[in-house]
Amino acid sequence: MSDGAQDPAGHGWPDASGRLDGNLHRLAIRVYYEDTDFSGVVYHANYLKFAERSRSDFLRLIGVHHTDLFDGDDPLAFAIHRMEMDFVKPARIDDLLEVRTRYVKASGARIEATQEIVCLVSAGGAMPEGEVLWRAQVYAACIDQAGRPRRLPAAVREAMAPLVAS
Amino acid sequence: MSDGAQDPAGHGWPDASGRLDGNLHRLAIRVYYEDTDFSGVVYHANYLKFAERSRSDFLRLIGVHHTDLFDGDDPLAFAIHRMEMDFVKPARIDDLLEVRTRYVKASGARIEATQEIVCLVSAGGAMPEGEVLWRAQVYAACIDQAGRPRRLPAAVREAMAPLVAS
Amino acid sequence: MSDGAQDPAGHGWPDASGRLDGNLHRLAIRVYYEDTDFSGVVYHANYLKFAERSRSDFLRLIGVHHTDLFDGDDPLAFAIHRMEMDFVKPARIDDLLEVRTRYVKASGARIEATQEIVCLVSAGGAMPEGEVLWRAQVYAACIDQAGRPRRLPAAVREAMAPLVAS
Amino acid sequence: MSDGAQDPAGHGWPDASGRLDGNLHRLAIRVYYEDTDFSGVVYHANYLKFAERSRSDFLRLIGVHHTDLFDGDDPLAFAIHRMEMDFVKPARIDDLLEVRTRYVKASGARIEATQEIVCLVSAGGAMPEGEVLWRAQVYAACIDQAGRPRRLPAAVREAMAPLVAS
Repeated sequence: MSDGAQDPAGHGWPDASGRLDGNLHRLAIRVYYEDTDFSGVVYHANYLKFAERSRSDFLRLIGVHHTDLFDGDDPLAFAIHRMEMDFVKPARIDDLLEVRTRYVKASGARIEATQEIVCLVSAGGAMPEGEVLWRAQVYAACIDQAGRPRRLPAAVREAMAPLVAS
Repeated sequence: MSDGAQDPAGHGWPDASGRLDGNLHRLAIRVYYEDTDFSGVVYHANYLKFAERSRSDFLRLIGVHHTDLFDGDDPLAFAIHRMEMDFVKPARIDDLLEVRTRYVKASGARIEATQEIVCLVSAGGAMPEGEVLWRAQVYAACIDQAGRPRRLPAAVREAMAPLVAS
Repeated sequence: MSDGAQDPAGHGWPDASGRLDGNLHRLAIRVYYEDTDFSGVVYHANYLKFAERSRSDFLRLIGVHHTDLFDGDDPLAFAIHRMEMDFVKPARIDDLLEVRTRYVKASGARIEATQEIVCLVSAGGAMPEGEVLWRAQVYAACIDQAGRPRRLPAAVREAMAPLVAS
Repeated sequence: MSDGAQDPAGHGWPDASGRLDGNLHRLAIRVYYEDTDFSGVVYHANYLKFAERSRSDFLRLIGVHHTDLFDGDDPLAFAIHRMEMDFVKPARIDDLLEVRTRYVKASGARIEATQEIVCLVSAGGAMPEGEVLWRAQVYAACIDQAGRPRRLPAAVREAMAPLVAS
């Protein structure tokens, strides 16, 4: 089911970077103590962390590494400049979630992604499988150390081109 | 400059809950190690934490306490259901920021807030005072333990009524 | 390589709870943006989060669920009361780590664990595979809602007995 | 009670870096949603964040800035290499805490601190004022970008000398 070849450096953990199914990236996320708050559900800002993990792993699986971009004479990084998000239903401790990411734009300095987080296994049994918990539109840019937008490196553009939804 | 009477329980820390200036809540936030990431700036999801602190302290200063809402026969809490936000400029380690919050709606089960985070002191000197770093529209609801929207308690509506921007 | 039967609820993600090899639990952890700080390495408190994920998943794989303990007439949870830890070497962005957990005591209200975090894949190439980055002794207790220590439920004691290192 | 001169850059927030009382640093910490977990109390790793804020603010008040150390030809930062800590009692949402820090060593590359977190105001009323919630011994070192220990800069040693408890 999983393809170890997607992450040859996974060292025995074939799913460590999630999976690419066509142009859809999927990443399993377990809800731990750290993710919840006293009201019993996942703290709202933590969905953004889950989402960022999937965006990073998507890039990793197509050969784009933060380390490569950042090390070198002209350090580059990705910076979010806008997000719009709906918190539809709450996740709870021990739930198994899946983040699903599609990149919908990668041109100039800009990357856009559409993401959702669904419930795979509801520990308390309250949530049906596949229920959408969170949805977001994410607008990011490639920036240099001074924070200026920088054209995506050619290698990044080429790696992303076939995967950008159209 | 600060008014201890705003937080009589502050025990010698008059600014522990920020300050209300008319209908504007202001809260100072220092950027610590925990808030930054390897790219050198504040991790994007952490602005949401800063913003939540100000929303909570605003309510605290007008006498609305999470503890009161949550304890009792019918536990209530606030849940965000939508956020739209712009990450305008990045904050960095040691910067002193200020979160500014206005509630613009409080009726039925719904609360809406307009928030921004500005730079007060740029540790590296790169950012002028008052520069806007982050802006958001926040749509929240009062919910019960089952996650159902619940009409704001009368005491909350009454406390908020004079402060909701119009 | 992985055994789906260990997490029958994994729904296609056989490693979602890590793996039990005898009495050793192993969990892969990727270092994301959220885990690092401006100095370029993993923020020190985040190793505690990684460690907690492995302790929780260890219990999950032997059938002990936070949800079961916490829901019911007498809600129980695990609380750490002491930790001693050495931060040996720093992890960096994109590194693939492995948390390794052994429970060394489970009697009365008390659970003790020995944990370490090793580097599996160093993204920057600087760290040899298997290098120990962090080590800890963790002393926890089962507590009730008032924070009082409570004898481990029989089902928990029985599930842990064969796995406690001796 | 507070001395604005301690943080001349505080811009109207005199307590933004806490206060030095002799060689004791005190910092007020409010417990927010983000700090708690589903069990109703502060998540254990977050006490380390609170403690780090006080260590950083202590240094800030005596003129030692992360930014100054890190920027320049030879970037330096502080890294924790060992911590021993007791989680004595749990803090809860809306509680007002105070972190208290004493540096007990600053020589060579090494800094040691003794820290505790006490409850100032218990939102639920369950905890007496001044109750100790958390205690730690913290062993840190000044390191360079390669992670090697580096002698504390003379300016840091001199600033700390009169404050190191003896």
